[in-house]
Amino acid sequence: MLNIRIEKTQNPKPIPGEDNPLKFGTIFTDHMFIMNYETGKGWHDPRIVEYQPIVLEPSAMVFHYGQEMFEGLKAYRTDEGNVLLFRPDKNAERAMNTNRRICIPEIPAEDFVQAVKELVAVDNAWIPTRPGTSLYIRPFIIATDPFLGVRPSDTYQFIVICSPVGAYYPEGLNPVKIWIEDDYVRAVKGGIGEAKTGGNYVASLAAQVKAHDEGYSQVLWLDGVERKYIEEVGAMNIFFKINGTVVTPKLNGSILPGVTRNSVIELCKHWGLPVEERKVSVDELVEAAKTGALEECWGSGTAAVISPVGHLRFEDNVMQIKDGGIGEVSQKLYDTITGIQLGKVKDEFGWTVQVK
Amino acid sequence: MLNIRIEKTQNPKPIPGEDNPLKFGTIFTDHMFIMNYETGKGWHDPRIVEYQPIVLEPSAMVFHYGQEMFEGLKAYRTDEGNVLLFRPDKNAERAMNTNRRICIPEIPAEDFVQAVKELVAVDNAWIPTRPGTSLYIRPFIIATDPFLGVRPSDTYQFIVICSPVGAYYPEGLNPVKIWIEDDYVRAVKGGIGEAKTGGNYVASLAAQVKAHDEGYSQVLWLDGVERKYIEEVGAMNIFFKINGTVVTPKLNGSILPGVTRNSVIELCKHWGLPVEERKVSVDELVEAAKTGALEECWGSGTAAVISPVGHLRFEDNVMQIKDGGIGEVSQKLYDTITGIQLGKVKDEFGWTVQVK
Ligand SMILES: Cc1ncc(COP(=O)(O)O)c(C=O)c1O
Ligand SMILES: Cc1ncc(COP(=O)(O)O)c(C=O)c1O
Repeated sequence: MLNIRIEKTQNPKPIPGEDNPLKFGTIFTDHMFIMNYETGKGWHDPRIVEYQPIVLEPSAMVFHYGQEMFEGLKAYRTDEGNVLLFRPDKNAERAMNTNRRICIPEIPAEDFVQAVKELVAVDNAWIPTRPGTSLYIRPFIIATDPFLGVRPSDTYQFIVICSPVGAYYPEGLNPVKIWIEDDYVRAVKGGIGEAKTGGNYVASLAAQVKAHDEGYSQVLWLDGVERKYIEEVGAMNIFFKINGTVVTPKLNGSILPGVTRNSVIELCKHWGLPVEERKVSVDELVEAAKTGALEECWGSGTAAVISPVGHLRFEDNVMQIKDGGIGEVSQKLYDTITGIQLGKVKDEFGWTVQVK
Repeated sequence: MLNIRIEKTQNPKPIPGEDNPLKFGTIFTDHMFIMNYETGKGWHDPRIVEYQPIVLEPSAMVFHYGQEMFEGLKAYRTDEGNVLLFRPDKNAERAMNTNRRICIPEIPAEDFVQAVKELVAVDNAWIPTRPGTSLYIRPFIIATDPFLGVRPSDTYQFIVICSPVGAYYPEGLNPVKIWIEDDYVRAVKGGIGEAKTGGNYVASLAAQVKAHDEGYSQVLWLDGVERKYIEEVGAMNIFFKINGTVVTPKLNGSILPGVTRNSVIELCKHWGLPVEERKVSVDELVEAAKTGALEECWGSGTAAVISPVGHLRFEDNVMQIKDGGIGEVSQKLYDTITGIQLGKVKDEFGWTVQVK
């Protein structure tokens, strides 16, 4: 249990009105959470203070050696005015795994969740209410030793910031077009692919720019060894419905274990749909698209929740799915998950956590 | 040609005395170079100012998505009092390649070199003179857009800082012990391995910690696909002398193209030694060590210049080289390269560049 010092701002900013389009990740709330780490002293001085710049030495290790991690989750306001978080314990657990992989000292899961909860409570007036909007929460850790040389840092800052957001994809729930990449690689077994750390995202930029230039909104990655098996999208996990079975790539060390992915699997199983976590080759997809066995495709992630995929391209193969429309399972998943998040659908799984 | 504004500090720091051990990368000079980038405006406002903290929004992209690059080179003071840089054009060229790979706008090579030269000229009193010491120069670029979401940033800072340094390895030219890693992977073809960007270094930490715990100073990486071919060390390229031939892994997209590596190859060829850039399997090494064909091994990198390797370990195979002593080629390379860098050996290749 952290003893969080709260210093409220004397200069609150105007909260965006309901007509503000809330372009994803551009507006930030009045406060932020900060906690420091120092070898020997551990994590200390947890505080909620005015949203303010970070001041670091130019030699701070985060600028050079990429020792940084992040998480992403959302807070929602229900019609009754309650504030709900969606499975924050899963983010805390993944944060611990990321930390372990990249040698950042762990933060106890309950401290992680407490920091998020207290910050959201302080800035709760910033949670937007229009359909599709929410408060996006970004916990992150940066290595701050002023030192040049490759080793884990001895000092860190754990920071949480919040941003009221609209839809992640300008398309909203409209189906997106996805480019299956056969040249660049995002991550490989033995690497850092299953950790939520900057290095995986910087590795994805060049392919993403190429895909955008070709008119695609996201890249779907293949494995780095055989260049044959589907991994995940830039910021989403991927699902296919093939011949009535829901199929998603198995977690193999190079894929991020998405919280939404896990929720999708649980829900589909709960609904009695057959679910397979296994290797999915791109050849299987091309073939399934040809025969019509590929019935649906969607991405899952905190930002977009469920993002129907209407069009996949691998080299010269263009796969049109549901004639570019939204599939039934995609729609049902979106409605159910956002319904649970907003307190409108009964939360049979105990996924939501109320912020007091 | 940049028009660099120079604002000298009013508060110069004390310059470390010749008895200061100059622990690598811990002391920084009085000034730094900064230049900003903004889409539409390009690189602008080049300036040399007092060494000072970097102030960024918590949402600055570099903290989240790892869009950051760096370079490393050194300045030396000759006995005549001249200041020499070693092949800064090669660093500028590699910086352009890194930038291209991770979607950072390019900096013309001559501007990169000019920034380095002018900063070194301003802080030239900081160049130490004791044998083995030099001024380490760290150019780096960070993505600064205050934005959450994965895309290339629209704003950047290009910064150069300098640090007077002693030996990178506390061992000095003494042979190091190197651990060949068979579990973790640093980089893979199609990824960012040949770019000098934080993501590659954060990926190396866990294995490095493991190797240190086992009493090894560095990790030697295998390729990420077959887990069979030698790549490079954490911050050095690697060379072997096998049956009289100098062998080093071929640049394949996942290895950093070292400036020192290139210099070693040129020198060895110049001396009439047979040099092969090719795939080198770990099995070949184990076998060569057994038969005695593995005559020498050394790492090459700006920080340590040449680092003899006396001991390699792969799983249960311990390879002792030169009975743990320094090989002749390693020693000759070290003497020649540092001799050229210090203006003591004739620079037949035009590698050194004088700072006025
Ligand atoms: C690479 C990657 N994969 C998958 C996801 C989806 O994970 P989650 O459902 O936890 O948001 C994300 C985003 O968070 C991601 O960045
Ligand atoms: C991963 C890696 N390989 C090799 C090198 C050696 O390159 P250079 O000789 O240019 O210093 C470095 C260090 O710069 C490095 O970080």
